[in-house]
Amino acid sequence: MWIYEKKLEHPVNIKNKDLRMAKFLVTQYGGPDGELSAAIRYLTQRYTMPTGKAKALLTDIGTEELAHVEIICAMIYQMTKDATPDELKDAGLGGHYAQHDNALFPTDANGVPWTSAYIQATGDPVTDLHEDMAAEQKARTTYEHLIDLTDDVDVKEVLKFLWAREVVHYQRFGEALVNVYEYIDSKKIFDMKR
Amino acid sequence: MWIYEKKLEHPVNIKNKDLRMAKFLVTQYGGPDGELSAAIRYLTQRYTMPTGKAKALLTDIGTEELAHVEIICAMIYQMTKDATPDELKDAGLGGHYAQHDNALFPTDANGVPWTSAYIQATGDPVTDLHEDMAAEQKARTTYEHLIDLTDDVDVKEVLKFLWAREVVHYQRFGEALVNVYEYIDSKKIFDMKR
Amino acid sequence: MWIYEKKLEHPVNIKNKDLRMAKFLVTQYGGPDGELSAAIRYLTQRYTMPTGKAKALLTDIGTEELAHVEIICAMIYQMTKDATPDELKDAGLGGHYAQHDNALFPTDANGVPWTSAYIQATGDPVTDLHEDMAAEQKARTTYEHLIDLTDDVDVKEVLKFLWAREVVHYQRFGEALVNVYEYIDSKKIFDMKR
Amino acid sequence: MWIYEKKLEHPVNIKNKDLRMAKFLVTQYGGPDGELSAAIRYLTQRYTMPTGKAKALLTDIGTEELAHVEIICAMIYQMTKDATPDELKDAGLGGHYAQHDNALFPTDANGVPWTSAYIQATGDPVTDLHEDMAAEQKARTTYEHLIDLTDDVDVKEVLKFLWAREVVHYQRFGEALVNVYEYIDSKKIFDMKR
Amino acid sequence: MWIYEKKLEHPVNIKNKDLRMAKFLVTQYGGPDGELSAAIRYLTQRYTMPTGKAKALLTDIGTEELAHVEIICAMIYQMTKDATPDELKDAGLGGHYAQHDNALFPTDANGVPWTSAYIQATGDPVTDLHEDMAAEQKARTTYEHLIDLTDDVDVKEVLKFLWAREVVHYQRFGEALVNVYEYIDSKKIFDMKR
Amino acid sequence: MWIYEKKLEHPVNIKNKDLRMAKFLVTQYGGPDGELSAAIRYLTQRYTMPTGKAKALLTDIGTEELAHVEIICAMIYQMTKDATPDELKDAGLGGHYAQHDNALFPTDANGVPWTSAYIQATGDPVTDLHEDMAAEQKARTTYEHLIDLTDDVDVKEVLKFLWAREVVHYQRFGEALVNVYEYIDSKKIFDMKR
Repeated sequence: MWIYEKKLEHPVNIKNKDLRMAKFLVTQYGGPDGELSAAIRYLTQRYTMPTGKAKALLTDIGTEELAHVEIICAMIYQMTKDATPDELKDAGLGGHYAQHDNALFPTDANGVPWTSAYIQATGDPVTDLHEDMAAEQKARTTYEHLIDLTDDVDVKEVLKFLWAREVVHYQRFGEALVNVYEYIDSKKIFDMKR
Repeated sequence: MWIYEKKLEHPVNIKNKDLRMAKFLVTQYGGPDGELSAAIRYLTQRYTMPTGKAKALLTDIGTEELAHVEIICAMIYQMTKDATPDELKDAGLGGHYAQHDNALFPTDANGVPWTSAYIQATGDPVTDLHEDMAAEQKARTTYEHLIDLTDDVDVKEVLKFLWAREVVHYQRFGEALVNVYEYIDSKKIFDMKR
Repeated sequence: MWIYEKKLEHPVNIKNKDLRMAKFLVTQYGGPDGELSAAIRYLTQRYTMPTGKAKALLTDIGTEELAHVEIICAMIYQMTKDATPDELKDAGLGGHYAQHDNALFPTDANGVPWTSAYIQATGDPVTDLHEDMAAEQKARTTYEHLIDLTDDVDVKEVLKFLWAREVVHYQRFGEALVNVYEYIDSKKIFDMKR
Repeated sequence: MWIYEKKLEHPVNIKNKDLRMAKFLVTQYGGPDGELSAAIRYLTQRYTMPTGKAKALLTDIGTEELAHVEIICAMIYQMTKDATPDELKDAGLGGHYAQHDNALFPTDANGVPWTSAYIQATGDPVTDLHEDMAAEQKARTTYEHLIDLTDDVDVKEVLKFLWAREVVHYQRFGEALVNVYEYIDSKKIFDMKR
Repeated sequence: MWIYEKKLEHPVNIKNKDLRMAKFLVTQYGGPDGELSAAIRYLTQRYTMPTGKAKALLTDIGTEELAHVEIICAMIYQMTKDATPDELKDAGLGGHYAQHDNALFPTDANGVPWTSAYIQATGDPVTDLHEDMAAEQKARTTYEHLIDLTDDVDVKEVLKFLWAREVVHYQRFGEALVNVYEYIDSKKIFDMKR
Repeated sequence: MWIYEKKLEHPVNIKNKDLRMAKFLVTQYGGPDGELSAAIRYLTQRYTMPTGKAKALLTDIGTEELAHVEIICAMIYQMTKDATPDELKDAGLGGHYAQHDNALFPTDANGVPWTSAYIQATGDPVTDLHEDMAAEQKARTTYEHLIDLTDDVDVKEVLKFLWAREVVHYQRFGEALVNVYEYIDSKKIFDMKR
């Protein structure tokens, strides 16, 4: 279970309204390679990991991704909270206003709802860790694209923090993959049935 | 942010493999009225609640629903973890085995991936709390259906716990709705613009 | 069965082309909280209502929501029917033109196709009526957002009519809920099986 | 607008519970080529038809398809209404019971929610009428498959009625296509702009 | 199986960047009536065609539609490949940049992912050929809309080539339908079982 | 463009009807990690690869995956082509029969339509190749699950061939990743802008 602590993993203090950027940033909430995808993917996969180390890592990173969901939400909320309907309309967010006012909603940057088709859990730890390493690369790339799309230093600073975390996660999933390979070797598991 | 505590909100000790029940129970993971829907709905909506009390309630219940996701996952994992491919086939889970082995995956009972189309956040606190009260009724009803579908006392016991929590949440959302109405009255908000 | 009468429930006489508004308004056709969602939801749920009064109410309101679908379609059609491809492009409807010319199509404001994942029917009349009351609140809120997005008096007038109907429906679903609670009490239904 | 008349277009009197058949039959409610697809397709397309005759035909057939939705729902409801959870489980409807009890819900035979991706409206009357003729062929074929899947004479009788209506609709859309071609010829429309 | 030949079925030499047009054109990649829909539809349906001629035709046209997918991709790639993030943002492709940089991705013009719900295969050759003739009409219409949306002669020239191919395919599917009807007659297939 | 050669990349000669296995096997046609996902993923990503070698590899493997789609389709078709409606019903394929007779259709093993949400193309070659390596691991794992689900030696033989090809593709994507890293180094690309 989780205990909520009323602070963000990383502070978010965005001073300027930036509605167009909010429209793009939402992909890291509910888009294919966003933080919600990451959190649900890792917290789902952990049950079938063969080692305590891998289980713990997926739990840790999955929990951290929940915190990243919260950071992304805080960013979007700060960037949009005082916007008028006309401003939202001009930023291409008229449809969002019609359906959600200035509330958050987990979609990609085009307004497509999040689906668990974005993630996978196969029960094979080697495969799932490859999926996770690819997921971190995709998240890293998305942050790079987002950093390109803004000039706001407050926004960039948080995005760079999140970008750096994905790089660390990629590294840690690589270590977990080595751990799983060692476990398979140590168990003398020779999967001969096929 | 969230801190993970390595225990379940409620213990899960299922002694008997029950694959058919696992196939139904998964709807409370990734189905329309499941715990994932609940968690994401409440944690999404909280930003636009007008009172601290309502914000806090959505954060609390959203966090508890994450714990319920974990309980459901633990149940399914315990009910299926030693199943053979043939047993999964006979229980109508051959397709699940093909795609996920015995890993968990957030779908409804028919294997349809979770989508955020199941939830809503409108920015209107009165509306969102109505959505939440309806959501709790739907979750309650789903638990009643699930209780009907099993004779396993260990499974029933956990389902009854979760059922009871939904009843409590419904009540608390009702109180939050009163709180929001009072806030609106106290602010002398007369929405005259339309 | 239904008999078609060749008139609208409420007249629609929009004199000005307003393509951007048409793009937002379509959410009340094929969006999550639109009239199509409402009609299909109520006409689906009516079979499992326990009282004649509740069945009749769902049939009546479901039928009226079909008339509202028609009103929304008439509005959008009038707002767009003489638009050129260039005008559609400038209004963010180039994609719509490519796929549908100036035909109507049931999507949300972002072009996401309607899905029955937006609605629910649980077989529990108390739950389904909560779902319906929440649905009316969501539709009401969406109309308020849409009214904010236009200055056209002809459009506003129709939207206000539709808005008022949702308020009435909400009230009537509340009365049906009382009726269902009374029925349950009168039948001395004590659901003891669980 | 539509007036509801409290009778079915064709009587439905199914004497035997047949849960497996209900599971298949639901595709004519919420499946790709079902009655809901038909009704929404035709009532959507009618706005851009160039002749009064074609507009009227789409309105008429669309309205009749709403009546067919009601017939399919009545059939499924009669086939399932007294089923116990165990019976539903044995018929492969345990997942349906968990999510919907014995309520109706618009999905295909695998439980996949209806989506407007199944239909199209292009604004070109020749194209839309081809779409409609293909839709009627698909509906006809689905009814033939369903007739193969049951031995119940009461069910077969209604399915044959609905099958025959699709054959008639196909014919009438063919006539509308001729009407539209004649209109185009009579208007000396030579679309030279491309 | 297929052998790749490193040339396009029709040359693509687009000299001007045109980002807004790229946004619309993508519907012929991953939209409802695009080339991917066509290729997968025909290559899926061919197995249940009753005559060698119909099987061969679906294989041929399906294979040609793969070449058309490649042409559309080449067009979009040439129209966008040197675009900066700011240019993409201004063309309404900021969301695309965030998620895909300037890579291609199979969606419709609104960014909705391709789904096989767009296509059908019923096992009835008469029905499937009607579906195919309708599909060609829809593709033709989409190309006409796209031709309206651009002034670039290089783009128009390729679109007209693709448009003409759809017209030919429509004709050929009509011939296949005659062939299938003749086959059914010659076999004295009288489907009397129903 | 592609030239169709009328032979399979690997022969398929399945002597026994096996309907339940066909139901599972379809996931390698239209499921998340199936051959259609692979083909479309690689043929989509190739445009933004920075080296001729990587572009050529994606084209080659993408083309081979099209051949694998054909092999899977041939397998399913042979396993089901003489089945009666009753046999399909007993194998859990009654819903498939209702909607598709014995035609093929690209869904996962639960009947969920294929969606391009399963794949990604980010424009970053390092990321896309990670995605591809993960995809091959997922396909490998799915083949292992499928091999577990059948005792038919003819089916197993083809599945083992396809399994082995995924292992080779994984290796080749690894080599392409090295090639891309070398290219990046050789170009002295120091991406400093962020």
